[in-house]
Amino acid sequence: MPVEPDTIQLAHGSGGRWMNQLLDRIILPALHPHGADLSLRHDGAVLPATSSPLAITTDSYVIRPLFFPGGDIGRLAVYGSVNDLAMCGARASWLSVGLILEEGLPLETLRRILASMAAAAEETGIAIITGDTKVVERGKGDGVYVNTTAVGPVLSPTLIAPSAVRSGDAVVINGDLGRHGIAVLSVREGLEFDGDISSDLAPLWRPVERLLQAGIDVHCLRDLTRGGLSSALNEIAQSAHLGIEVREIAIPIHEAVRGACELLGLDPFYVANEGRFAAFVPAWQATETAAQIGGVIIGKVVDTHVGTVVLETTLGTHRPLDLLSGEQLPRIC
Amino acid sequence: MPVEPDTIQLAHGSGGRWMNQLLDRIILPALHPHGADLSLRHDGAVLPATSSPLAITTDSYVIRPLFFPGGDIGRLAVYGSVNDLAMCGARASWLSVGLILEEGLPLETLRRILASMAAAAEETGIAIITGDTKVVERGKGDGVYVNTTAVGPVLSPTLIAPSAVRSGDAVVINGDLGRHGIAVLSVREGLEFDGDISSDLAPLWRPVERLLQAGIDVHCLRDLTRGGLSSALNEIAQSAHLGIEVREIAIPIHEAVRGACELLGLDPFYVANEGRFAAFVPAWQATETAAQIGGVIIGKVVDTHVGTVVLETTLGTHRPLDLLSGEQLPRIC
Repeated sequence: MPVEPDTIQLAHGSGGRWMNQLLDRIILPALHPHGADLSLRHDGAVLPATSSPLAITTDSYVIRPLFFPGGDIGRLAVYGSVNDLAMCGARASWLSVGLILEEGLPLETLRRILASMAAAAEETGIAIITGDTKVVERGKGDGVYVNTTAVGPVLSPTLIAPSAVRSGDAVVINGDLGRHGIAVLSVREGLEFDGDISSDLAPLWRPVERLLQAGIDVHCLRDLTRGGLSSALNEIAQSAHLGIEVREIAIPIHEAVRGACELLGLDPFYVANEGRFAAFVPAWQATETAAQIGGVIIGKVVDTHVGTVVLETTLGTHRPLDLLSGEQLPRIC
Repeated sequence: MPVEPDTIQLAHGSGGRWMNQLLDRIILPALHPHGADLSLRHDGAVLPATSSPLAITTDSYVIRPLFFPGGDIGRLAVYGSVNDLAMCGARASWLSVGLILEEGLPLETLRRILASMAAAAEETGIAIITGDTKVVERGKGDGVYVNTTAVGPVLSPTLIAPSAVRSGDAVVINGDLGRHGIAVLSVREGLEFDGDISSDLAPLWRPVERLLQAGIDVHCLRDLTRGGLSSALNEIAQSAHLGIEVREIAIPIHEAVRGACELLGLDPFYVANEGRFAAFVPAWQATETAAQIGGVIIGKVVDTHVGTVVLETTLGTHRPLDLLSGEQLPRIC
């Protein structure tokens, strides 16, 4: 074993000297560019007291490749957990980071990912307070897998959940669909599409906060990640025991994304996004909701065809927008 | 793709119909044998209010093989996070579970692991409140990797941390060393040792609670996991800016573990444990501490040889007990 390897070695997961060096020289300085608290070396962290109830969310990130147009696995892992909490009406305040590193990973790659996580954490005002690092043998991982768990105060005055959705609610989304999935696919498969398609990856707490501050009576929020718009709406329809109707013509899709989807035989309503969400709000607040999040009203909640989503196509016909069957784009997040 | 596969398929990670079936038919029923709360399908969970400060810890588990004498990756993932919180003087109350599944994993294996997690959670009084499941291609994982993050109230009246360790403190451990590492190695390498060596895997909150209830002024706690006793003591010595002296003759090691270590050229002080910890307490409370946790006093904290651990051997000589260099037993947790 070289004295100063430039790749991850099994010994970096040993709990011994190599692991300490990895933590002290690379992981902690990268995650805490302004100086690391020594308590980070303890088994856990104590959260500051809060007066609000706390929400918690966890996600593992296995996206391939690690870097893609508009982001990387590190930024995705921070924003992803920020966004899951935002969908509960909660502001992410603290984050744990679990890394599963594959033997042979260049340390430079790890540094870039960690720096990206640190920048994303600083940008979103989240503190990385505890973590864990494991190393697996070559061929038992894929560079880096990241788990993040976010905790933060619930700032919504009312329950944001599928059970709060009501018939007549409007469905509003905050932008065009499908860019994350197509951006990842383009670099993964070495495809080039007309126009540069960059991921929509973005933190979603600010738009949610704007809705709450504007006094919108937010009933439910759901990010349009794995399985895209279709999965999100179907899950809400099933959980809420209501139906959902959406109009294809109202759903914005970038021309380059539409072209790529046609070329690849993908349906943009099933393609993953990482900066898009659907808000379920009272109909009379739909226009204000769209204005606050820079989005559009795409449909409404009905008390018919319970548990299913119906799409009014651009031709004026209606068809069910089913849950995805099978796999469209593996390892998109 | 078969209609009812008996192994994990990439489609199980899609966010679509297959993923919903995996969650509804296997993961949620297994993790919640007494009935699953529907809110588990939301992006996050809200924690009940508590009056105590909350501690948080995260760990990923990549142990190989998934099942070993005395435990499995599921039980390990629950106890491991329970134990990390216990080392902060906190009782684990809520747990998130992140799964990274490899394509081709038998569903029966997944069921067994999840059932083991559910049993361990029930036994330790911890509620599994949120989770996430990802699927990676064959050859990009190793069956199952698990991440758990535990949150729970800090119940120690004083700070339990390396900074609270004082010169003169006694070092007490709660049992014999090395059984986890040797048990895992025996099944991994197909070795047979004299006597059945079973992992010491166990939840550690109860012994910690007994110390607190007995009025022991606990200064620091550390579980003796990766890197074993040596790593734990060295990290405390370095963080506390003090020295530690331990007596070899006082440290219990099962005869079968000692034999296996000799055969394999391993040092039992570096072998991982999953149910053993060191408590740093005032000298006058050392005997009571040992009695409460069924353990032994193995040494003391000194204000010389700062940052290092010195072992008094059975021959009466002294040698440094250094941090592990290199890797002894990869993927032991």
